[in-house]
Amino acid sequence: MKLVSYEYNHQSCYGIYTQGGIIDLTRHLGHQYPTLKLLLSQPDFLAIIAPYHTTPDIDVHEIKYLPVIPDPTKIICAGMNYAAKKSEFNEVNAIPVLFIRFADTQTGHLTDVIKPSISDEFDYEGELAVIIGQGGRYIPQDKALEHIAGYSCYMDGSIRDWQHAWYTAGKNWPKTGAFGPCLVTADDIPDPGQLTIQTYLNGNQVQYDTTANLIYTVPALIAYISQFTTLSSGDVIITGSPGGVGKKRTPPLFMKSGDTIEVEISGIGRLCNRVIQD
Amino acid sequence: MKLVSYEYNHQSCYGIYTQGGIIDLTRHLGHQYPTLKLLLSQPDFLAIIAPYHTTPDIDVHEIKYLPVIPDPTKIICAGMNYAAKKSEFNEVNAIPVLFIRFADTQTGHLTDVIKPSISDEFDYEGELAVIIGQGGRYIPQDKALEHIAGYSCYMDGSIRDWQHAWYTAGKNWPKTGAFGPCLVTADDIPDPGQLTIQTYLNGNQVQYDTTANLIYTVPALIAYISQFTTLSSGDVIITGSPGGVGKKRTPPLFMKSGDTIEVEISGIGRLCNRVIQD
Repeated sequence: MKLVSYEYNHQSCYGIYTQGGIIDLTRHLGHQYPTLKLLLSQPDFLAIIAPYHTTPDIDVHEIKYLPVIPDPTKIICAGMNYAAKKSEFNEVNAIPVLFIRFADTQTGHLTDVIKPSISDEFDYEGELAVIIGQGGRYIPQDKALEHIAGYSCYMDGSIRDWQHAWYTAGKNWPKTGAFGPCLVTADDIPDPGQLTIQTYLNGNQVQYDTTANLIYTVPALIAYISQFTTLSSGDVIITGSPGGVGKKRTPPLFMKSGDTIEVEISGIGRLCNRVIQD
Repeated sequence: MKLVSYEYNHQSCYGIYTQGGIIDLTRHLGHQYPTLKLLLSQPDFLAIIAPYHTTPDIDVHEIKYLPVIPDPTKIICAGMNYAAKKSEFNEVNAIPVLFIRFADTQTGHLTDVIKPSISDEFDYEGELAVIIGQGGRYIPQDKALEHIAGYSCYMDGSIRDWQHAWYTAGKNWPKTGAFGPCLVTADDIPDPGQLTIQTYLNGNQVQYDTTANLIYTVPALIAYISQFTTLSSGDVIITGSPGGVGKKRTPPLFMKSGDTIEVEISGIGRLCNRVIQD
């Protein structure tokens, strides 16, 4: 099943995405679960929404996509997590590289991502995003998948000349992280380690890999992260990007105003955004 | 004036700290400003609270201190921001080192900070905390002080063997960041660059410096940070710690269960915490 966050009639909503339109769960369940992340905290959220999986309420063209989770408490990002990327950046540490994004760095499918005018090094990174359902601490690897509500695509845009060993300033510009289009519930993705991930800049493939090549798998990341911090419903882990980023090309290939950037993951969807300059 | 966040009768409150007791602003203003960070967003918050600055409502021994801002949207931390500390860690970059803490890493004055049992490298760092009043983006240095609601002490506890070039895992363990006792409003601190900062472990002074030795001053940090992210009311910037941390001593000196750790800043107060092991 595909869940989606969106703006409709100037209200922040969530619902079920179907080919025929959006089933507006905010209308049906919003009094009890005002936010998607609260709904996802229910162990039986699939059963809760099942009765409403009937007739669409809203045409898909009437919504403005929001980030799949508009208000995550924690967005934890793995860097250098594909061998090709790690090698491009000469990263040699044998532990997960982790940085943090603020929620206001996010934007939804079919919205604009913002290239800061102060930099000409706005780089793309296509990534698999994991959305936590049941939170926890000290989650063992072999139980980690049970804590996942679903998956989505993430375009972890990076301002390379502001990204240092500590990442913070390079990864926290407003609307540089696109997140969508939908959350595909975990029951539809039996193995997050067998997904093809591709990034397209203006229609040209610039990244291609499979999550089988993740250095730290999705369960390994959840186990490592939940050692030092408690994960909660709606928290987002983005798992790192394949090689092929613009910074390490000859000549470099950065995003500029008017470009289209897309991230496609097999079984999950294709996230499309246009680039504008602030 | 000193503002304080606390738990009283199992409720999260804020108020004015006076020698004679606490003036419970939640009782007087909570209907209009349910949180301290919302109150601080008002440009005239000093005038708003002035009429209530009269008789205390609660004895100071009846409260449990909370972090000065229990729910900041952003906690942005400068590292390596005193020459002595930068030299201890061989940090040579000519730009601010910044990392992020999650709100659940914080705890209040006179509460326990938690040493993870998994590590024996729980290190102290005494720091000046800056609390934003009026938010903004692209704040120029010469206007930066106008955006500050007040100041406090911070004990930015670090798990050194989990702290890498990207900081995240070393700085985000629960209740490793003590924040308090109070917010001293900015009108009482005309120059945040002229404060003495001292850290005491079990009563012995282990750090001593003055904020005159900050490499990036408080206005410089606000100007730099607000280039890439919008600052909002209640956001916290912790400004870095002097040299003398435990990791770089011979032999190393780390915090262990039963220790007392204190951070004192002139004109602001003395933050005291006991260390326990999780």
